[in-house]
Amino acid sequence: MRLSQYHLRTVKEIPAEAVLASHKLMLRTGMIRKLASGLYTWSPLGLRVLRKVEAIVREEMNNAGAVELLMPSIQPRELWDETGRWEKFGGQLLKIKDRKEAEYCYGPTAEEVITDFARNEIASYKQLPVNFYQIQTKFRDEIRPRFGVMRAREFLMKDAYSFHLTKDDLAREYRNMYDTYVRIFERLGLKFRAVEADTGAIGGFASHEFQVLADSGEDAIAYSTGSEYAANIELAEAITTATRPAPSETAARVDTPKQTTCAAVAELIGLPIERTAKTICVITVDSESNTDSGDMVMAILRGDHEINEIKLTKAIGEYRLATEQEIRDALGTVPGFIGPLFDGEGNIGPTPRPIRIIADRAAAVLSDFVVGANVPKFHIRGVNWGRDLPEPALVADLRNVVEGDPSPDGQGTLAIARGIEVGHVFQLGDRYARDMNCTVLDETGKAATPMMGCYGIGVSRIVAAAIEQNHDDAGIIWPAAMAPWQVAVCVINPKDEPTVTAAAAALYDELTAAGHDVVLDDRGLRPGNMFADIELLGIPHRVVVSGRGLESGTYEYRGRRDTESTALDHRALLARLAG
Amino acid sequence: MRLSQYHLRTVKEIPAEAVLASHKLMLRTGMIRKLASGLYTWSPLGLRVLRKVEAIVREEMNNAGAVELLMPSIQPRELWDETGRWEKFGGQLLKIKDRKEAEYCYGPTAEEVITDFARNEIASYKQLPVNFYQIQTKFRDEIRPRFGVMRAREFLMKDAYSFHLTKDDLAREYRNMYDTYVRIFERLGLKFRAVEADTGAIGGFASHEFQVLADSGEDAIAYSTGSEYAANIELAEAITTATRPAPSETAARVDTPKQTTCAAVAELIGLPIERTAKTICVITVDSESNTDSGDMVMAILRGDHEINEIKLTKAIGEYRLATEQEIRDALGTVPGFIGPLFDGEGNIGPTPRPIRIIADRAAAVLSDFVVGANVPKFHIRGVNWGRDLPEPALVADLRNVVEGDPSPDGQGTLAIARGIEVGHVFQLGDRYARDMNCTVLDETGKAATPMMGCYGIGVSRIVAAAIEQNHDDAGIIWPAAMAPWQVAVCVINPKDEPTVTAAAAALYDELTAAGHDVVLDDRGLRPGNMFADIELLGIPHRVVVSGRGLESGTYEYRGRRDTESTALDHRALLARLAG
Repeated sequence: MRLSQYHLRTVKEIPAEAVLASHKLMLRTGMIRKLASGLYTWSPLGLRVLRKVEAIVREEMNNAGAVELLMPSIQPRELWDETGRWEKFGGQLLKIKDRKEAEYCYGPTAEEVITDFARNEIASYKQLPVNFYQIQTKFRDEIRPRFGVMRAREFLMKDAYSFHLTKDDLAREYRNMYDTYVRIFERLGLKFRAVEADTGAIGGFASHEFQVLADSGEDAIAYSTGSEYAANIELAEAITTATRPAPSETAARVDTPKQTTCAAVAELIGLPIERTAKTICVITVDSESNTDSGDMVMAILRGDHEINEIKLTKAIGEYRLATEQEIRDALGTVPGFIGPLFDGEGNIGPTPRPIRIIADRAAAVLSDFVVGANVPKFHIRGVNWGRDLPEPALVADLRNVVEGDPSPDGQGTLAIARGIEVGHVFQLGDRYARDMNCTVLDETGKAATPMMGCYGIGVSRIVAAAIEQNHDDAGIIWPAAMAPWQVAVCVINPKDEPTVTAAAAALYDELTAAGHDVVLDDRGLRPGNMFADIELLGIPHRVVVSGRGLESGTYEYRGRRDTESTALDHRALLARLAG
Repeated sequence: MRLSQYHLRTVKEIPAEAVLASHKLMLRTGMIRKLASGLYTWSPLGLRVLRKVEAIVREEMNNAGAVELLMPSIQPRELWDETGRWEKFGGQLLKIKDRKEAEYCYGPTAEEVITDFARNEIASYKQLPVNFYQIQTKFRDEIRPRFGVMRAREFLMKDAYSFHLTKDDLAREYRNMYDTYVRIFERLGLKFRAVEADTGAIGGFASHEFQVLADSGEDAIAYSTGSEYAANIELAEAITTATRPAPSETAARVDTPKQTTCAAVAELIGLPIERTAKTICVITVDSESNTDSGDMVMAILRGDHEINEIKLTKAIGEYRLATEQEIRDALGTVPGFIGPLFDGEGNIGPTPRPIRIIADRAAAVLSDFVVGANVPKFHIRGVNWGRDLPEPALVADLRNVVEGDPSPDGQGTLAIARGIEVGHVFQLGDRYARDMNCTVLDETGKAATPMMGCYGIGVSRIVAAAIEQNHDDAGIIWPAAMAPWQVAVCVINPKDEPTVTAAAAALYDELTAAGHDVVLDDRGLRPGNMFADIELLGIPHRVVVSGRGLESGTYEYRGRRDTESTALDHRALLARLAG
């Protein structure tokens, strides 16, 4: 590609609404242009990158045995009524009426359409298993479209749906898709984690999210430094390997006039925060009637840990936080000084009222620790389970994991990272097939409801996620597989120096013939502006052809992550590009 | 591809609504499945063909210097208001409201969006010319979707839009696109004609339709047997090279009691129909007020010719057909016996009232011809211009061309064919740019309105059109470039004969490695059913591997258009497939 014959337009000024690096850089490079809220035109440059991602996804899906088809983007309401999702899907579903007032939606996903296709196409178990996929435009009417194509309304998605006679076969294909996704994201050159996800409302058997790691990611994930283990931070199990040391202190009141946090108390006393405990008071709720069941529960966590609501719910059922008034009524104190022990008239002992006290695993192995005194402005130090207060009524995993926790699979320790969800695999089970009366004849000639899996990849979102992960102040730093071009050949003074222009064109032809994906920057910009553009665009290799270089028989080479240029002769250049 | 691992499902029963061969065959092969009115899912088989067409279109557009981008399918109303098309486009425009009640449409075309893109992206003449294209889903809310993907509501289209500083440069790119389209349809292996089209309401300078020739086509086109000339039948100029012979008969009344058509009169008298003339009475209309201007005009055509309304309007302005009462009032006769002469009391002469008589070129060179007598049940024969009645007030091209007319470009004669429109190129001029305030700075630094061209190809419709043109009773006969696979290797008894299966697999691998697009039919169907499927699917080459063939060292080869199989040894087979 010769840039002089291409449409490239980088810009300096971009709207203030662009806050994410990927959004800013996609606008500055001109990869995308906003048409309306959540709607973007992919310019020639942007589309080049999008198509590279699409091609890799398609190739790996085909290699995995999935077969591509193409469903309409517009879907009839009738199918969505069969699963009840016409009403349940919510405001993201863009509903449409045609000229005859028939109702449709712009598909945000295609479980209904593919299940309808399957019930018409698949009659016998002999046609199973099968995995249909498409790479197609989807629409979700986001309340707040933002971050460019990261959360656009119209977007490009690969969605696959597999059908199976048995749960075991579904699990086999699920693993196949999981492995395929790993290959896809590895080929794309992205740092990612496959993360155990909550099967939540859809109620399937298993689910993993594929998260591209980036500091700006919306999701927090915990992953092992020593294995493949990764999970959403809410789901990762917090392991405590420590055991409780023997007591060595006597419980004693401490004056903490202004210290309402564990950190402040620890600092005042001169103890590490890991020796403090925080107390969270909650009221259990009857989940059926959604009314208080009236019991207060105290959850004790180590001072440096955070409560995990999903885990606490798992331990004690539905709950709500206690109000300040409820705390005052029950304990006669205010938040900041709550604890599982009472400091009554100088005596330290268990709470007078029977409040259920449960402890996180890490809090349960503390000894000589610090808690609130249930008297404003006082804490108690040197507290020990079983001596100063009873052993916890329940010891459970109640907290979010933290950096350095042992990995739940026993290999390595956990690190915390932020991620951008770019893929999701899901064992749906038979829910859609059942709702839509999709059956196949099994080996015995009986009608059986097939099991389904679904497997999505946000093709357009990958482009933004890759930029979030790979950029610096000068612009994008593309992974090789996603770069719009691998090599930029830059011509200095193309109009004034015909020899240089000819040499650059010859190099361009030679590299192209050798299979490199090359762009020739023959626009005639000043070197500074040209180099800034090429850096902004994130081209992995830059080769400058200049009059001075030709005299010495060298090209000026610079990799996108290099800090300096290197003069390379023809042979060295080819070797560098080949490697 | 091994069919045993593919999703292929041919069917025998198809809905009665399928009347066109392409619709029937696409359903029978399972290429498409109907989701809802005018909405079709492309099965894996169908998508294979669609993608082959798409790839050829993309490659040729890129070779022609066009740059691909991708616009959203959902377009904001504001842009359509700027051109007035939100109201004018009519019921085909699928209008949509999002959750915030903002108005959008599903793009049926993208002039507004691309012009908006251009006015933001193109600042200077230096960025011109440029030709942007996309291959993207469109939606037209047809009142009566039918014929499968031939007239679906959601369809795949390649739409391109070029921008130019001058009309001349637009004409150059128009020619470039015209030539590109010729290459595309030639590569697709289709018989087609580029046809001059009416620029009509859009009011551009030039327009050609690309028509795939097929008997079932909706459009009638006239094309030269001796040159590239082709035009919609309404637009083709009818050329008359004959000159008027000298009179040899005397005008005389003929008794034609029941003969109200030229054909019947000619038969009764024993003259060729080419010696008769038909008279059409119209009343001119004031086009401003749309009221009659009161004048009756008689248009005289040769008996075997048909009036062309566009041409007659061009000759005399707006008009309407005269009513029977008006004919009775003016001529005292009834339709079937009208003519430009009066047979009053046995005398034959011009009409007593001054009615303007105009003649088609072919009617103007008649002599000794037959006309109605303006007396019920009588005609007059031996009529001659300039003798029995004045020369026509106007001689013009008023008729549709017919098979055998000289080609307007002077080369060859015209043939008439039916066609399916699959492409359209159009010089739009500056209409959209003007409406939308799209300007660029020209060489002198002044704001100039760019000229635009637009160039569409109905990618999904091409698939149906190709089938209309290429099929027989057994099924589809794909042109090589569009076939889902080039070669089908059929295995007889794959389960019972491991040697045959192994030999077929080896041949499949060998041909695939040699670059052929091969499908291995290892489904284990009976030969009859398998061959019927392969014929139905229209695979160009069929190779049967059987135990008997292996014994004699041959394969049974049959081309899709062959009537018999041929036994070919390995070498001969490779040669046949290579050729």
